[in-house]
Amino acid sequence: MMVMYKYLEQINSPNDLKKLKGYEVKLLAEEIRSFLIDSVAKTGGHLASNLGVVELTLALHTVFDTLQDKIIWDVGHQSYIHKILTDRRKQFHTLRQYKGISGFPKRYESPHDHFDTGHSSTSISAALGMACARDLNHEKHAVVALIGDGALTGGLAFEALNHAGQSKKNMLVILNDNEMSISENVGGLSNYLNKIRTNSVYSKVKGDMESLISYIPGIGKTVVKTAEKAKDCIKYFFVPGILFEELGFKYIGPIDGHNYNELCKVLNSCKNLKGPVLLHVMTKKGKGYPFAEKYPDKFHGVSPFTIDSGKPLSSSRGISYSEVAGNTLVECAETDDRIVAITAAMPAGTGLTKFAHRFPKRFFDVGIAEQHAITFAAGMAAEGYKPCFAVYSTFLQRGYDQIIHDVCLQNLPVTFLIDRAGLVGNDGETHHGAFDISFLLPIPNLTIMAPKDGVELRKMIQYAMKTKGPIAIRYPRGTAVTINESSNNDIVTGKGEIIYEKGNDALIVAVGHMNPLAMAISEKLFKEKKIKTTVMNPRFIKPIDEDLLIKYAQKHKRVYVMEDNAKIGGFGLYIQGLLNNYKIFKEVNIIGLPDEFVEHGDVDTLYNLYGLGLNEIYNRICDDFQEKSFQNILITR
Amino acid sequence: MMVMYKYLEQINSPNDLKKLKGYEVKLLAEEIRSFLIDSVAKTGGHLASNLGVVELTLALHTVFDTLQDKIIWDVGHQSYIHKILTDRRKQFHTLRQYKGISGFPKRYESPHDHFDTGHSSTSISAALGMACARDLNHEKHAVVALIGDGALTGGLAFEALNHAGQSKKNMLVILNDNEMSISENVGGLSNYLNKIRTNSVYSKVKGDMESLISYIPGIGKTVVKTAEKAKDCIKYFFVPGILFEELGFKYIGPIDGHNYNELCKVLNSCKNLKGPVLLHVMTKKGKGYPFAEKYPDKFHGVSPFTIDSGKPLSSSRGISYSEVAGNTLVECAETDDRIVAITAAMPAGTGLTKFAHRFPKRFFDVGIAEQHAITFAAGMAAEGYKPCFAVYSTFLQRGYDQIIHDVCLQNLPVTFLIDRAGLVGNDGETHHGAFDISFLLPIPNLTIMAPKDGVELRKMIQYAMKTKGPIAIRYPRGTAVTINESSNNDIVTGKGEIIYEKGNDALIVAVGHMNPLAMAISEKLFKEKKIKTTVMNPRFIKPIDEDLLIKYAQKHKRVYVMEDNAKIGGFGLYIQGLLNNYKIFKEVNIIGLPDEFVEHGDVDTLYNLYGLGLNEIYNRICDDFQEKSFQNILITR
Repeated sequence: MMVMYKYLEQINSPNDLKKLKGYEVKLLAEEIRSFLIDSVAKTGGHLASNLGVVELTLALHTVFDTLQDKIIWDVGHQSYIHKILTDRRKQFHTLRQYKGISGFPKRYESPHDHFDTGHSSTSISAALGMACARDLNHEKHAVVALIGDGALTGGLAFEALNHAGQSKKNMLVILNDNEMSISENVGGLSNYLNKIRTNSVYSKVKGDMESLISYIPGIGKTVVKTAEKAKDCIKYFFVPGILFEELGFKYIGPIDGHNYNELCKVLNSCKNLKGPVLLHVMTKKGKGYPFAEKYPDKFHGVSPFTIDSGKPLSSSRGISYSEVAGNTLVECAETDDRIVAITAAMPAGTGLTKFAHRFPKRFFDVGIAEQHAITFAAGMAAEGYKPCFAVYSTFLQRGYDQIIHDVCLQNLPVTFLIDRAGLVGNDGETHHGAFDISFLLPIPNLTIMAPKDGVELRKMIQYAMKTKGPIAIRYPRGTAVTINESSNNDIVTGKGEIIYEKGNDALIVAVGHMNPLAMAISEKLFKEKKIKTTVMNPRFIKPIDEDLLIKYAQKHKRVYVMEDNAKIGGFGLYIQGLLNNYKIFKEVNIIGLPDEFVEHGDVDTLYNLYGLGLNEIYNRICDDFQEKSFQNILITR
Repeated sequence: MMVMYKYLEQINSPNDLKKLKGYEVKLLAEEIRSFLIDSVAKTGGHLASNLGVVELTLALHTVFDTLQDKIIWDVGHQSYIHKILTDRRKQFHTLRQYKGISGFPKRYESPHDHFDTGHSSTSISAALGMACARDLNHEKHAVVALIGDGALTGGLAFEALNHAGQSKKNMLVILNDNEMSISENVGGLSNYLNKIRTNSVYSKVKGDMESLISYIPGIGKTVVKTAEKAKDCIKYFFVPGILFEELGFKYIGPIDGHNYNELCKVLNSCKNLKGPVLLHVMTKKGKGYPFAEKYPDKFHGVSPFTIDSGKPLSSSRGISYSEVAGNTLVECAETDDRIVAITAAMPAGTGLTKFAHRFPKRFFDVGIAEQHAITFAAGMAAEGYKPCFAVYSTFLQRGYDQIIHDVCLQNLPVTFLIDRAGLVGNDGETHHGAFDISFLLPIPNLTIMAPKDGVELRKMIQYAMKTKGPIAIRYPRGTAVTINESSNNDIVTGKGEIIYEKGNDALIVAVGHMNPLAMAISEKLFKEKKIKTTVMNPRFIKPIDEDLLIKYAQKHKRVYVMEDNAKIGGFGLYIQGLLNNYKIFKEVNIIGLPDEFVEHGDVDTLYNLYGLGLNEIYNRICDDFQEKSFQNILITR
């Protein structure tokens, strides 16, 4: 069935949009919503955030010319309509697929995309940089940062507001206020915005502001020495955005983000204002699709779903690593009051929802604020608590200094539950957890672990909850397989395990969930080529089980390390270094991620592409053992 | 000459302070200033910040009991008086010396130190964590964060304010407002605080607040529907801290930070307030020492000086790496308009003062905000500029995600001038630049360089300014030696150089300023032991000169890598990996920093201690070549 989009199909560039009449744009908005729902239901992707900014995006493209004017989409998962309007509608069915269009703005995709985003809270900084560049160039185009109220809680956004407020640069920050991050927003700023939203007096009175000023002098004389002060008071009386005004912004709003005509009018007047302007726009996440309006968190990022029911097409294939982590924390917390859980605005994504309900007083959602999450955890740990910060690998990069400086330097018992380690798939290069082993390994005092399956993750968390000092446990996105429940012996500090042993041809040291893959490859190598391998699950990336590693490395012809992390600085190089220290000079073959940013696509495709699939690794090992020149090089002394 | 301190010498714990009468405390404050100036003039250290908080620290220790109550000193370089009052006066002459007391709070030093600091903006997060822990424990002690107005511009502090404002936890944030970071403060927040400070109406009227409320209803009826709204307006009329109030804090101030009695009175009343309180205290950096009052930036961190003149005891031994960097940038910027310079509140420390004066429009001090500095740079770079962010290695950790996500992912031409790489000496474990090679190496697209001397640093910056893509140049604290000016050939991408070649016993690959040391060791090895070495200066840590490295690694018996970076994840391991890829199985001896946090002390002592001194390396190489079992292991195929 081919759906016809009368207006949408006429739009191949923002210029086409400008040809439409007002009522036609409203019909276009309806078509866009329908197109979005229909398309994302098939491909999966970010839905609720995009449904919330249909009119806003239309208004932006009506008022601005994005070939000249720069619009920076904070996080960027709300840029779908922008993509549709800028000649990417026909590729939209390839969204987030391998070699398809990205779910985030990409400079390489379109001249309408001016800055790549993916992580939160970067837009004001980038926009200010662009405004400074523009002024040095004596150019005149507009610079606009579109940022959600969730992203505004990130410290980076505040640093940028602080700088922009003083800079007096002409730039427009649009606060897309939908009262949500992925989950509901938290924090003093959120309360403040809520106060603005719910106080209808503000908007009503605002229009009468001019006439009302005349009332003030009477009282003004009594208490106020300067006209300036009186103006300040009036400002606060009628203008709700005093917080932004005090930082140096001109505040406008709040206005209805679903009223296209009003948006155009206000955006047009903003264009002519001098200095930094903050426009507060109210939108509803999921607008126009009842399921997404009701459950905006569930429809933040979705897999393919049935439009009529809002239900996912494929049922989940089992319990995820995130759920294992969350459930285990709840279990441990039942018997240990010292355990508390922390999230940076991702309670559901990191599996902490159950913990939050069971132990509301011991659960802390700090907002999109990874830096604070970690130093806050350090504060609790210094007072005897056992904080667990559950966080995606890619976002942990935001708190790197705090891991080093606030946690590990004081050797505090903070546990990092590092979710989405390795490749994450369709979100692509901004979201892969490709670097965590590399950036964590050099940090003194930090224990780093990776479980081979869900059962081992549970045991590792139990271990961490009983152990002193900082611990990081990394595990991938997706279903937690169980290799062999009964064989999961207890975790002992610095001890690995041999989980497969057929002979002395190749030792495969596999990080975390690469173990089941290593076993499957081993089986195939033995069955088809009589190549006999041993698979070592190190459990501890650091401190590694040196005795076990050295013993097995010595007696095998070849050593392979499999890791879903950058090869540079990763576990393979660390093992090479250890063998070198033991004067075992033997080739170590590292099977890991390349020295490039890995694009988006489904995880299996990507792992195959980079030589981390079953067949690729199997073939590589076969080739190695078939090489005529192969020599067993083993020198110890 | 023995100086007698009548009151100070009676104080061995804060309890002794509580025995003094009011006028005696004022005399004590004078003695403390005298003691501080006298002591820091001998040892060096942070002076101006401490002179500014004498009365405040005395008041804190009068009102609070720091064995129970937790005071978190943001950055911590203003904790000297606290140390003096908590039984560390007698060790104060060992300040920042090897095995002496630290220049920052240390939990291992005293039960009065509750959280280690060193980097900026952590105190509110840590304090909030402690307040949450306290409440879960049903305890009652106070939690106090003391933070400067400079540190408040760091995004981490805002993230914490946002969380604390909503949490409603009893905690006190003392804003120590001295209008300075190390340099003068910048940003909208700074302007805002300045407005509070300079508007005397605020304080005068505040006292009459109650009586004035009666004036409001008359006008209130006209425009305001709710009593709440009227109160809000009054609050803004008379309470200057509306920005903090809106985030959920109770704001008190500004008050005179040098009036001990008033401070005690206000702190005592703060103790009984519920919820988060922000107390705004005005202090003067350098208070009581005229040179420090006049030049608070110069007396922020000082080397030993003459009290009468304020002049440093030892004259500088030559131009520093920072100055070379700054001067070169000015040179390059004269002929290239696209070059702009960025600092995060450290224009002098990073050598950018000259640039700031010469090109004020192309110079950006963004405040203590490393994250924003980098994303801001990315924004400028996306628009065709060549931003250079000069930053200390240890503070670059704060912007790790921004380097990856905003700069390198888009392959933007941002240059990182990484100052203070390697050990920095007396500031100790929080400030060493021990990890930058490790955390930068895995980042795709990033070029990493290290100059052997000042001349080469200049050439590298010139190279960076003409090259596309992100570049990091790391160099140490201190004087930029010149090895041999004439031999400094131009920088060619990915090309290293052999700077010493005597024979094929040992290849020494030396990072940056380790090169002159490697040459000195080589000379000694040849002269005294007839061990013949080659010294390779790689220039490029990444992309490394593989051809040169492989060629020389193959023909030498042993390979050494010298780097002032953590051995884990560092350049040595990277080289091991490359040799492995070329199937050169040969021991690579890494001479680098250990897997532990390196304490404070003078740089030479520390390098010697960790085996990076001339004699240590010399002896190690001698030992290796004397080992009877030594074998030349070189297998290639």
